[in-house]
Amino acid sequence: MPANVPPDRAAPIGVFDSGVGGLSVLKQLLRLMPQEEYIYLGDSARVPYGSKSPATVRLFAQQCAHFLLERGVKLIVVACNTASALALEAVQAMTDAPVIGVIQPAAQAALQVTRNGRIGVIGTRATVTSDAYARQIRALAPVHPGRNGRSGDPVRVLSQACPLFVPVVEEGWTEHPATRLIAQEYLAPVQEAGVDTLVLGCTHYPLLKPLLQELLPGIRLVDCGEHAAVQARAILAQRGALAQATGRNGNPGRARFFVTDEPATFESVAQRFLGFPVAPVERVVIDHWFPEEAPGV
Amino acid sequence: MPANVPPDRAAPIGVFDSGVGGLSVLKQLLRLMPQEEYIYLGDSARVPYGSKSPATVRLFAQQCAHFLLERGVKLIVVACNTASALALEAVQAMTDAPVIGVIQPAAQAALQVTRNGRIGVIGTRATVTSDAYARQIRALAPVHPGRNGRSGDPVRVLSQACPLFVPVVEEGWTEHPATRLIAQEYLAPVQEAGVDTLVLGCTHYPLLKPLLQELLPGIRLVDCGEHAAVQARAILAQRGALAQATGRNGNPGRARFFVTDEPATFESVAQRFLGFPVAPVERVVIDHWFPEEAPGV
Repeated sequence: MPANVPPDRAAPIGVFDSGVGGLSVLKQLLRLMPQEEYIYLGDSARVPYGSKSPATVRLFAQQCAHFLLERGVKLIVVACNTASALALEAVQAMTDAPVIGVIQPAAQAALQVTRNGRIGVIGTRATVTSDAYARQIRALAPVHPGRNGRSGDPVRVLSQACPLFVPVVEEGWTEHPATRLIAQEYLAPVQEAGVDTLVLGCTHYPLLKPLLQELLPGIRLVDCGEHAAVQARAILAQRGALAQATGRNGNPGRARFFVTDEPATFESVAQRFLGFPVAPVERVVIDHWFPEEAPGV
Repeated sequence: MPANVPPDRAAPIGVFDSGVGGLSVLKQLLRLMPQEEYIYLGDSARVPYGSKSPATVRLFAQQCAHFLLERGVKLIVVACNTASALALEAVQAMTDAPVIGVIQPAAQAALQVTRNGRIGVIGTRATVTSDAYARQIRALAPVHPGRNGRSGDPVRVLSQACPLFVPVVEEGWTEHPATRLIAQEYLAPVQEAGVDTLVLGCTHYPLLKPLLQELLPGIRLVDCGEHAAVQARAILAQRGALAQATGRNGNPGRARFFVTDEPATFESVAQRFLGFPVAPVERVVIDHWFPEEAPGV
């Protein structure tokens, strides 16, 4: 490491998700900041988070964050909508390093994109039940900022849980007729609500973009990973903590991968998300550590 | 408790599964042995097991069994095909109490039912990859026992992973057109192989019976839970360990329910499996305990 690079510049960025989904966020981070080093953790032994309770998601997310913090990351990206919805504050409370989720950046982007002030959000059951997107959108802009003379109307948010989207993506059925039927059923209320913008509020959903765009012509799709990456870069730039142009070892865009289940399954699905092989992937145990406030039962 | 009932007669039967699926096995146990008491554990914080590695499934199953053994169960039913396929021996090694899985009873039943010696098995990715059904079937009868003059032919087993069946059942889409398309695709190789018997090698699948039977006219469906219950009763009878006619407190068919995530989600799906409400359901922590041989990493 050159002597003139402060430690926090050379430190890696930590990214975690319940499994492979967060790789769609990592992909955007690598695209935007290829000079950085990354540590990616997928909690594949306990995936998915999207069907589980807030308390359980919070505990699992804290265990993921603890693993990353022990490795000296300079910023954490919670690359999972469910964990961002339910555990962002709990993770932020663990560290002085910046911790960003995928919800706030996507909510902001949706508000910039919408012309009629009606925004749809699709996500897991847990994300939708948490109402995190709607709350975030309303907090950022209680009323539509007013293009096309519609100023002052309240922003409307229609949220729809799509529990089968993650399994069909993991099965690789992104173009299958069954997936089309499933999508038609889930998206009917979104269409009826007249939204002009749809937030893909789950890191698996970008793989369904072609199908979703075909079923929803004219509706703008917002990919949460893209906007989280932009926010991550802005925060690091503001802190003077962006890595040097070529990274610690001169290898641009280096990423190390860790999972809590055996690597094989992760590796086979990961390439679909990232577009290149992720090996080597290392297995780690993270459930031995408990936060102090964790419930005994 | 009457003084003339030995403790092991009055002890409960332990049943565990990764989540709600094992309730279809509990339902059969309650039907066959309504005088018994049951403790049901669903590992809903880490569900599903079917997409995870053998080592992880083994650890989780041992933690479930440890919970049940601490509560003095007289028999354990591993009411999950994935755990039966990958962890039955590991659980058996933990106790002198009998431990039965769902695979051996279903394999035996399939051999009794088949007339042409061609048996299909559908299950999760982990169950099918383990090849446990095929091995069990071949161990019980390497050649077809020979009805209709076909004696001596080797028994043929065609196994097919159906990863989307669990999510569609949990979504309640047992009759949905998308489910029909999914089933048609998964079952095509089964039909082409000319099987006359199909083992439903996952405890979620009995809820798809009407659809599967419609798509596979003339093929006999084998429900693993039914045959596991018969085997459980036979083992307890042989040991003189069946409960008295009315159970410890005179309440026939009493069951207590424990889960590792919050009870609400479990309760809402459980009624579909069991046909009656399961409340009260208690949340417990089981991942603090580790078997001695558990890997450090």
